[in-house]
Amino acid sequence: MLSFECDYNTGCHPKVLARLCETNLTPMPGYGTDEFCESAKRKILAACGCPDGDVQFLVGGTQTNAVVISSLLRRYEGVIAADTGHIAVHEAGAIEYTGHKVLALPEHDGKIDPAELRNYLRTFYADANHDHCVFPGMVYISHPTEYGTLYTKSELTALHEICGEYRIPLFMDGARLGYGLTSPETDVTLADIAALTDVFYIGGTKVGALCGEAVVFPKKAPPHFITMVKQQGALLAKGRLLGVQFDALFTDDLYMEISRHAIRMTEMLKELFLSRGYTFFRQSPTNQQFIVLNDEEAARLAEKVRYSFWERVDDCHIAVRFAAGWSTTEEDIAALAEILSE
Amino acid sequence: MLSFECDYNTGCHPKVLARLCETNLTPMPGYGTDEFCESAKRKILAACGCPDGDVQFLVGGTQTNAVVISSLLRRYEGVIAADTGHIAVHEAGAIEYTGHKVLALPEHDGKIDPAELRNYLRTFYADANHDHCVFPGMVYISHPTEYGTLYTKSELTALHEICGEYRIPLFMDGARLGYGLTSPETDVTLADIAALTDVFYIGGTKVGALCGEAVVFPKKAPPHFITMVKQQGALLAKGRLLGVQFDALFTDDLYMEISRHAIRMTEMLKELFLSRGYTFFRQSPTNQQFIVLNDEEAARLAEKVRYSFWERVDDCHIAVRFAAGWSTTEEDIAALAEILSE
Amino acid sequence: MLSFECDYNTGCHPKVLARLCETNLTPMPGYGTDEFCESAKRKILAACGCPDGDVQFLVGGTQTNAVVISSLLRRYEGVIAADTGHIAVHEAGAIEYTGHKVLALPEHDGKIDPAELRNYLRTFYADANHDHCVFPGMVYISHPTEYGTLYTKSELTALHEICGEYRIPLFMDGARLGYGLTSPETDVTLADIAALTDVFYIGGTKVGALCGEAVVFPKKAPPHFITMVKQQGALLAKGRLLGVQFDALFTDDLYMEISRHAIRMTEMLKELFLSRGYTFFRQSPTNQQFIVLNDEEAARLAEKVRYSFWERVDDCHIAVRFAAGWSTTEEDIAALAEILSE
Amino acid sequence: MLSFECDYNTGCHPKVLARLCETNLTPMPGYGTDEFCESAKRKILAACGCPDGDVQFLVGGTQTNAVVISSLLRRYEGVIAADTGHIAVHEAGAIEYTGHKVLALPEHDGKIDPAELRNYLRTFYADANHDHCVFPGMVYISHPTEYGTLYTKSELTALHEICGEYRIPLFMDGARLGYGLTSPETDVTLADIAALTDVFYIGGTKVGALCGEAVVFPKKAPPHFITMVKQQGALLAKGRLLGVQFDALFTDDLYMEISRHAIRMTEMLKELFLSRGYTFFRQSPTNQQFIVLNDEEAARLAEKVRYSFWERVDDCHIAVRFAAGWSTTEEDIAALAEILSE
Repeated sequence: MLSFECDYNTGCHPKVLARLCETNLTPMPGYGTDEFCESAKRKILAACGCPDGDVQFLVGGTQTNAVVISSLLRRYEGVIAADTGHIAVHEAGAIEYTGHKVLALPEHDGKIDPAELRNYLRTFYADANHDHCVFPGMVYISHPTEYGTLYTKSELTALHEICGEYRIPLFMDGARLGYGLTSPETDVTLADIAALTDVFYIGGTKVGALCGEAVVFPKKAPPHFITMVKQQGALLAKGRLLGVQFDALFTDDLYMEISRHAIRMTEMLKELFLSRGYTFFRQSPTNQQFIVLNDEEAARLAEKVRYSFWERVDDCHIAVRFAAGWSTTEEDIAALAEILSE
Repeated sequence: MLSFECDYNTGCHPKVLARLCETNLTPMPGYGTDEFCESAKRKILAACGCPDGDVQFLVGGTQTNAVVISSLLRRYEGVIAADTGHIAVHEAGAIEYTGHKVLALPEHDGKIDPAELRNYLRTFYADANHDHCVFPGMVYISHPTEYGTLYTKSELTALHEICGEYRIPLFMDGARLGYGLTSPETDVTLADIAALTDVFYIGGTKVGALCGEAVVFPKKAPPHFITMVKQQGALLAKGRLLGVQFDALFTDDLYMEISRHAIRMTEMLKELFLSRGYTFFRQSPTNQQFIVLNDEEAARLAEKVRYSFWERVDDCHIAVRFAAGWSTTEEDIAALAEILSE
Repeated sequence: MLSFECDYNTGCHPKVLARLCETNLTPMPGYGTDEFCESAKRKILAACGCPDGDVQFLVGGTQTNAVVISSLLRRYEGVIAADTGHIAVHEAGAIEYTGHKVLALPEHDGKIDPAELRNYLRTFYADANHDHCVFPGMVYISHPTEYGTLYTKSELTALHEICGEYRIPLFMDGARLGYGLTSPETDVTLADIAALTDVFYIGGTKVGALCGEAVVFPKKAPPHFITMVKQQGALLAKGRLLGVQFDALFTDDLYMEISRHAIRMTEMLKELFLSRGYTFFRQSPTNQQFIVLNDEEAARLAEKVRYSFWERVDDCHIAVRFAAGWSTTEEDIAALAEILSE
Repeated sequence: MLSFECDYNTGCHPKVLARLCETNLTPMPGYGTDEFCESAKRKILAACGCPDGDVQFLVGGTQTNAVVISSLLRRYEGVIAADTGHIAVHEAGAIEYTGHKVLALPEHDGKIDPAELRNYLRTFYADANHDHCVFPGMVYISHPTEYGTLYTKSELTALHEICGEYRIPLFMDGARLGYGLTSPETDVTLADIAALTDVFYIGGTKVGALCGEAVVFPKKAPPHFITMVKQQGALLAKGRLLGVQFDALFTDDLYMEISRHAIRMTEMLKELFLSRGYTFFRQSPTNQQFIVLNDEEAARLAEKVRYSFWERVDDCHIAVRFAAGWSTTEEDIAALAEILSE
């Protein structure tokens, strides 16, 4: 069935698959020490403009958040996030499972506000009893956010400065980073991100890979990071699986190219909904679009096309998500147009 | 370079890869709810003779051990394992990271002894102060073990009975299960394992898959297991990646066939070392072979073929591991024979 | 210096101390298995009207919250609390340290609202993705709350019913329970609490003891609770220290009598502030009173009497806490009146 | 009944109790910031010869071990201990509950052997796969040990040097430190311990206090230690309870004096058993004595005197513990002599 359900509903980009096929029987050492991983790391660091940084490949998003956050925090620290942040609501308490609190700030279009962050930190340290509280030890942002929105360069710069003042790392969850970098509305580049964060990840699972996220430390990974990765069951014996895929994605600009394609498909999708008079639940400049449907229409559409339920709006309307991705085609959009016309 | 370093140094079996290629662009829902996963589960449960059981696919071995063990234990319980068990030494404390102790029993050829297990449990409950100790809440065994050895059906039956008496689950780590099931020296079948354990996993990473382990609950998974999987960062968004691979591996007996091939290659490898007068460090009836080399020879060989260092034997000898696997070929053995002749 | 800083700034009630002195050299077995503990438990359960329940003595409040909550929750569950709840803000992440999330609901006078609780639970289970979220596994309330406020019997009944429907325990933090039970404004008795909660604790540290909290399970403690207490370092070798104190506190109604005294002192304190025209920051029917002071006055008072800073109100005013307790005397109030007159 | 069951079966030393009575109604700020705590810390640091060190009072032994160990270890590290160490067997997995493994070395009279420790550390780092293992991050010893034995100054010096080489802290559990320092067979002083360890604790619960252990960091406590103490539920609101007691214990050499008394009582106890021809199960130079009894005799004695079961020796003999302490009197010994004569 036609599917706009999510951006992880197909396998991997054909060029990634081809590279997996070519390299399939070449013997390689395990645990990410192979030359495919090495090559991919070099290419990623070059693309980020931080050749002396570190890269670690992990398998999925929740895993990456849990490993990075719990490896960087001291045990008496928690991580600040928007109250709609993925780690705050949709990871089954994975951060708390490692012993750390998620300190929630109010979201604004899915983002945290630099002024509110500064105020939170100032208030924390001004409280004479702060020794009885969880120390803010890190700031987590997602870009795009869970609502598809993006930080501006100026917002990122502000967050970077505040984190610098308080000497806590800024961590960007880039599960859909490609779609953020190629949005027509962004002024943020990959190099900007490497310059303005302490650690971020480049999402593969949702942008052309079978699985895999590339964690980038623009300066340096924490000591014994590999042991902490192993300790959380996140070290892949066949690290090559991730290395080969990211090597393909960072060859000839493939990662950006397929992200741009997804954004083009999103523009068509947006246009289609606009032209048919649909109401948008939230404005999103990236590949996830949120539409309001009445219950009847939602049921009718669900027979022909897959989408995601987002939340109930009122007694007879729901918000739903239609996501485009690297594998969305013009034919998919045309098929949807036809369904909407019925 | 020629490599007998491990059984996870190549990609996946060509039939598995072919299936990944065929299904690559078919859209599927996420998190293991797709039809490939469903199909693979049905085939696995059929092969195990427990059609009403549950299967959950996970990505790697340490992850699987950590998720299964911490999902089944109560918080005041630990897991019993041989002191050489993978969870006891080579998982960077992944079990302890989830808050549980590994209760070590002495190994005998990598195995725990049923009589010693019974004695341990009896002594524990006889101790008037056992409320101040970690309760034994589970028994962990690996089959094949870290030394390539195998439990007999009679040993498994004894362990099963003891666990039944004390009402604690018996968990089998089957990272290399295929190589155990097809060993010429085993009397244990897949159906025996499903009948005699409470949970076990069928290793894919080391037996033909790019990644993936199939956790089998012959009766029933614990309530909310999927949430616990997510909580440990182990739920794959593209669950299909594991479903497709296991579906291929459990079609037309592929899993057993490629395991039998690996065992045939191992027999040739063993024969080769025997015929050249090498000393075996441990006797192993499965795909890992442990050989003693003097330091000079070890260094000379290392220039031509990859193997794994195992441990130092004395001042001038080391034990090393040569592993065959599903991708080992007769040409590989011949090439090794040549190297040994030089 | 005269001190209204808190209700834990003196030692223990003279009758408690006398009992410690009398019993000091009587040899007793350890870990709470002594006859003082047994006697205290019987008296407490009788006072609660649940003679078949269980009691466990612990040392302090944060410890008690952490032990009770983490012993009752399943690993995929979190605990619901008001966003101003002690466990949510002032315990340094003690709950998260045990792997569990605190699920915050908005406070209303420091309390959670039954209707909002019901809505939260209904919404949680209505969300098709709730398997990716932390399950609500318990409700935590404090009585009196952090703001000195009290649940009505009708509110407690409503919470009890909702928890019953969703089969999750209701836990009451009674660090200052005595001062709640003897408030002129309450309609809730100790027996009501035993009937309407699944577990609660009777605070000793702030109500006449040197240290100690009595956890009451009106029905039954969870299996192996003592081992979990030990596992969290909360099992006192000399359990007698707690048993003797609670035995004294529950002899001849001492606990209630000294609480009533504290409430009488609070009434005088309140009257004093009212008569001098002070503004109350929050209305509290128990032993903690919150007053607004301008900065100058605050500084001047601080030279003569100890109080607690609560929070900044505006550029030139702060809210402060004056607490009465079992050891507050009429002389203390008179001395304060004099200071306020200066 | 006459009791030699343990060294925590009575309350506190009369001078300690007197001090609690004197100070009972003096108001003091909470959480260990009071002047009794300050005074006790100064006296303790002076007695240890490290006036610039830090002291933190905690309530009990298991709590102290869990807090100190988990506050000093990095998350990928475990703690080395003798396989009979208290943390390895009798703390219900309290260390693992904080996410850390106890790395067991073979005990020799309850102690770890410096040569074996060095070998363990050397072997660990020589293993090319040590990144997959738990890093040794600390050495835990108890002095006296669980068997009442003592490290010599030369052994402590060796351990200190090895820990220095590997840059890991040496932690001494001194639950019964007084009885170690005053043993006729020791050459180790309190100042030696402060010089040769990185952190240790002076046990109060078993040496004259109602409860309480004084953790001494001869150099400096780790940053934000108080927050970690709170996070583990170990911060006492009425910190004064511990401060007053330790202040009394470290006034006029009381701690050492009552320890010497206990040792004198132990010498009489030992003499008594020797003179009656009893077999000693283990040789102990401190206040715990281990005797072999046949089952019949054990049963007969149990009617007149309390002792602790230690372990079964053979089909008709058990080992039991008789402990003297600060509150043991010559009358107690005489009464036991009479019972043994019956």
